Amino acid sequence: MPRILMVLVVCSLLFAAGPVVGQTREAGPWWPHPIWGAEDQAGASNWITPEKVLAAIKLVETGRIYELGQIYERGMPLFGDRTYSMMIPGGPTYNEPFGANKLIGNDEFLCTEIGQVGTQFDGLTHIGARMKMADGSVRDVYYNGFTGDEVLGSHGMRQLGIEKIRPIITRGVLIDIAGYKKMDRLPNGYEVTVDDVRGALKRQGLDEESLRPGDALFFRYGWSTLWTEPDKYNDSPAGIGLEVAHWVVERRATMIGSDSWTSEVVPNPDPTLIFPVHQELLPKNGIFNIENLKLEELAADGVYEFLFVFTPVPFKGATGSPGRPLAIH
Amino acid sequence: MPRILMVLVVCSLLFAAGPVVGQTREAGPWWPHPIWGAEDQAGASNWITPEKVLAAIKLVETGRIYELGQIYERGMPLFGDRTYSMMIPGGPTYNEPFGANKLIGNDEFLCTEIGQVGTQFDGLTHIGARMKMADGSVRDVYYNGFTGDEVLGSHGMRQLGIEKIRPIITRGVLIDIAGYKKMDRLPNGYEVTVDDVRGALKRQGLDEESLRPGDALFFRYGWSTLWTEPDKYNDSPAGIGLEVAHWVVERRATMIGSDSWTSEVVPNPDPTLIFPVHQELLPKNGIFNIENLKLEELAADGVYEFLFVFTPVPFKGATGSPGRPLAIH
Amino acid sequence: MPRILMVLVVCSLLFAAGPVVGQTREAGPWWPHPIWGAEDQAGASNWITPEKVLAAIKLVETGRIYELGQIYERGMPLFGDRTYSMMIPGGPTYNEPFGANKLIGNDEFLCTEIGQVGTQFDGLTHIGARMKMADGSVRDVYYNGFTGDEVLGSHGMRQLGIEKIRPIITRGVLIDIAGYKKMDRLPNGYEVTVDDVRGALKRQGLDEESLRPGDALFFRYGWSTLWTEPDKYNDSPAGIGLEVAHWVVERRATMIGSDSWTSEVVPNPDPTLIFPVHQELLPKNGIFNIENLKLEELAADGVYEFLFVFTPVPFKGATGSPGRPLAIH
Amino acid sequence: MPRILMVLVVCSLLFAAGPVVGQTREAGPWWPHPIWGAEDQAGASNWITPEKVLAAIKLVETGRIYELGQIYERGMPLFGDRTYSMMIPGGPTYNEPFGANKLIGNDEFLCTEIGQVGTQFDGLTHIGARMKMADGSVRDVYYNGFTGDEVLGSHGMRQLGIEKIRPIITRGVLIDIAGYKKMDRLPNGYEVTVDDVRGALKRQGLDEESLRPGDALFFRYGWSTLWTEPDKYNDSPAGIGLEVAHWVVERRATMIGSDSWTSEVVPNPDPTLIFPVHQELLPKNGIFNIENLKLEELAADGVYEFLFVFTPVPFKGATGSPGRPLAIH
Repeated sequence: MPRILMVLVVCSLLFAAGPVVGQTREAGPWWPHPIWGAEDQAGASNWITPEKVLAAIKLVETGRIYELGQIYERGMPLFGDRTYSMMIPGGPTYNEPFGANKLIGNDEFLCTEIGQVGTQFDGLTHIGARMKMADGSVRDVYYNGFTGDEVLGSHGMRQLGIEKIRPIITRGVLIDIAGYKKMDRLPNGYEVTVDDVRGALKRQGLDEESLRPGDALFFRYGWSTLWTEPDKYNDSPAGIGLEVAHWVVERRATMIGSDSWTSEVVPNPDPTLIFPVHQELLPKNGIFNIENLKLEELAADGVYEFLFVFTPVPFKGATGSPGRPLAIH
Repeated sequence: MPRILMVLVVCSLLFAAGPVVGQTREAGPWWPHPIWGAEDQAGASNWITPEKVLAAIKLVETGRIYELGQIYERGMPLFGDRTYSMMIPGGPTYNEPFGANKLIGNDEFLCTEIGQVGTQFDGLTHIGARMKMADGSVRDVYYNGFTGDEVLGSHGMRQLGIEKIRPIITRGVLIDIAGYKKMDRLPNGYEVTVDDVRGALKRQGLDEESLRPGDALFFRYGWSTLWTEPDKYNDSPAGIGLEVAHWVVERRATMIGSDSWTSEVVPNPDPTLIFPVHQELLPKNGIFNIENLKLEELAADGVYEFLFVFTPVPFKGATGSPGRPLAIH
Repeated sequence: MPRILMVLVVCSLLFAAGPVVGQTREAGPWWPHPIWGAEDQAGASNWITPEKVLAAIKLVETGRIYELGQIYERGMPLFGDRTYSMMIPGGPTYNEPFGANKLIGNDEFLCTEIGQVGTQFDGLTHIGARMKMADGSVRDVYYNGFTGDEVLGSHGMRQLGIEKIRPIITRGVLIDIAGYKKMDRLPNGYEVTVDDVRGALKRQGLDEESLRPGDALFFRYGWSTLWTEPDKYNDSPAGIGLEVAHWVVERRATMIGSDSWTSEVVPNPDPTLIFPVHQELLPKNGIFNIENLKLEELAADGVYEFLFVFTPVPFKGATGSPGRPLAIH
Repeated sequence: MPRILMVLVVCSLLFAAGPVVGQTREAGPWWPHPIWGAEDQAGASNWITPEKVLAAIKLVETGRIYELGQIYERGMPLFGDRTYSMMIPGGPTYNEPFGANKLIGNDEFLCTEIGQVGTQFDGLTHIGARMKMADGSVRDVYYNGFTGDEVLGSHGMRQLGIEKIRPIITRGVLIDIAGYKKMDRLPNGYEVTVDDVRGALKRQGLDEESLRPGDALFFRYGWSTLWTEPDKYNDSPAGIGLEVAHWVVERRATMIGSDSWTSEVVPNPDPTLIFPVHQELLPKNGIFNIENLKLEELAADGVYEFLFVFTPVPFKGATGSPGRPLAIH
């Protein structure tokens, strides 16, 4: 490090009053977390204990793997004006064959909102709420009461980054709403109800009592059938609303997932609310959400319980993660 | 698509004689693949059948998860002049709190050689060889005889991309060379021998007969202890050479892995050879290689056999993949 | 540099037979350049001598500056699937106010095809031709006979990069085709003829005899009126064809420019030809081309001769350059 | 735009109380600007009127162009952990020769802090100050009193972007401090004094009375001789301090420039101050600063007055600009 940069760092320490993390926060409406405590940054991935892993492993019967994720590529549906650009640098990267063995090599360069494109697992800095605090100040607040001042960093989130989450090795349960409704795809803007969820579980021979803390709950809307038509795919998807979100919270799930880009109904039937399910699950309860799945094959085969595997890539300070979610039956 | 671009595409079809993939290739020294055939693009991940998955699952005893990967961050060791730059776009991405629920949101932007930084799983277009073909032409050749003309694409590899690989859910075996040698870390440039490997296995109560096709074999050199010192970490690591590479091929492993940036000894004792182990494994045998692991904890706990989980992220046309490799015991 | 990388570099020198630049090339249809010689990489910017600069400076009468370029921003028309993504890293980049003076700072991150987006100046590696050489081999050939093997580099062009071009400080001449045709905008796909060019010059009180080597010739088609409608803008623009391209070559211009994304008519009236004007000007004659200009104000004010200023940004090895072209009157 | 995004935008308008720009700001220590008014965003580039351009043009005697900028390339000195990564996508971008004319094409991809790498022109959002406002709130404040809330945007600065600056076509004056001091390069950390400046001008046959509003003043420290040694180059450079900064403000210059990475002495002799010259010039006075120049040739030729040309590239919302600064004599 050049001397001058050390000077900057030292001056920073001397003269700047940076945010102190782990400061004694006054309690707020959803913090400190009643089970995992004031310093927890792993959210509902904490349910995934060795016992939970063992129980999930026992669900494997045939060894068959179902791929639940989409392939990442240019032209896939993206939210807003996000970017997904991969380049292969020209010719073998190292330009010449190397050595008597004439080795050639390549790599690739990717520029993208890495945790928020394609099949994406939303982490705990993706969504928050702006609110008035006990001291009268207005702050951006995330899971466990971490504030924007503590969290936001130029080159990666300083708290609650995706690298803090436990890998997701747990029991997965498919809740096939489209199958229950006898539709290929739910209609645009349809809000899935708790009755729908119970009906779908019953049709599958399950009931809500069979769900356990730490489960991963997957809602099938039939939306992935629009994946190759980005304009239609991005348009107002069916999904769960706050009623089902509260039901999910009561189930103490580790995460939800779905085959739409948001998992929740958009627009919300209450037009004053924007992505309220995201807000209910992520900051308020530390429950994760994986979007843009493919669930058709599971539904076709009637595979409703399985070992679910998703390993968030620990890009330090990222708001989410890409990956390759699997159901193993 | 604007009309003009369609014109370009059509003209391209009319006037350009592009490479035909899957053309009847003349056989070469390592193709067509004797088991998986001329069109195979999955390499030794083909060993991972449902039966193999079931067998690997049975290795889980306690449900404890070991993290084998490093965290991705600025300042980690990188090869050559690769880039790893993450930015968090300023303020909540959507700038204003949305809705009566005052939702705020963030994402992140990452620019990097996505499959070739940090803990990295080398795919089948990462390494090849330039060679004289039967017809006298000189070509770049990859796994199963695919040529550079067929493979290379501006915006992603057109063949043999990482998305073609099966997820790695298999038996993992740690081969603790540093432990066998009673060293914290092997010396720079030390070539691990087959005798070392057999000795290490024996010390662990295993022998090479117990290895099975499709296993993932992990060599511990003690190199990850240098991870926070990039200059030392990148300097001439210990590792396997061609002798052990041939032994790996005979074991019909799906992949190897290690705690160095290359898995193989560098420089090779034969100074005319550059990364010959990579070349022996990837193009010639379709055997994968994951680098920059952490194996200290497994070794400390004496966990030598485990369920290994690694799910290459299907970035279409990438030469490799980041991820979060796990050993589950 | 870690020792291993030095080993690689040295091995490369020992074992690889890389392309030799400046090798004695056999003469070809457009090389060596008859005036500037076999090693020239500056093309028609060579016309811009001190004398030419002085003559151009003398055209300034009022000191008024006309902006001829567009602003670069998300949502502007882009060719094909190019990317233009700027991010402002979150909060002051350095996170905290520094020093007793509480300095804050920001920067920005941009990912883009830097020389080929928005107002863009095409350099000498942007376009070439694949052709059979005297020795029977098939090669990609650029200006002055440089071949793809010599030019292409993973991380920047190794020859003919934009940094080799002289800054463009020369006489600019507007040729207002739309004005001559009494149209706001030429029709889609209209090929401008030499008669049109002569008519436009005559209407402006100029003739082709008044044009001098090294001039920059700007064709106004009225196309920039579509700039905010990317689909229409990108669709088959009017422009010059090979007839006018040959006329430009005879004029010994340094460059052309226009208010469309290509300067040339698309599709070409001969449907077997793709961007033939680009090919005639850039590789064959070293004549540059700046696209996506705004020429409305010059035309409205009847400013037909002016000091033209464009300074290609010397991004080493780039195929073109963004910038801020000016007419000073 | 998908319907849902329109919903988001509309909701944003209904429910969010965004910052109002151009709001009646209470006056502060350096705003509203006494000459250019409360809404000005062009700063001291306002001095560049047609009359100023005409006067500068008259300085051209020989037509000789001096290049004052460095070439942008991997490995050049960068501040902190900034990135400069260019890639040439593999093979002709469009993969196949197009048309009967067998056209081939290339572009390049660049990822970088575009306005803050290499030869860089600092704009008005690059530097500000955190301060207590009249209403007691603490804000980040930039030129003309624009606040962080108004300025900062995720994908580009919303106010004071580099595209708001007039092109720099003005009189340039070299102030050769190293020449005056009879040194090849000033010592590390040396603060240039006003006496040095006056001495240097006198040695050149000039005096401060000859300087005019809108001039561009270039300080030569001899620092560019370290350009190829990034560690030395980045280390504590000589430069001007607050004394000379105040003198510059009194001269009513449009901008300064220098051959170091900061133009100002680092560390400042007052160790509590971080980059105070930047803060004095940019936010407080709207005076620009171009860094990382080469001034050796001008000094060697004794060219002290010249037409200076720099055209900030209008990347919307950028904090600065790369470019190719020229002295024309």
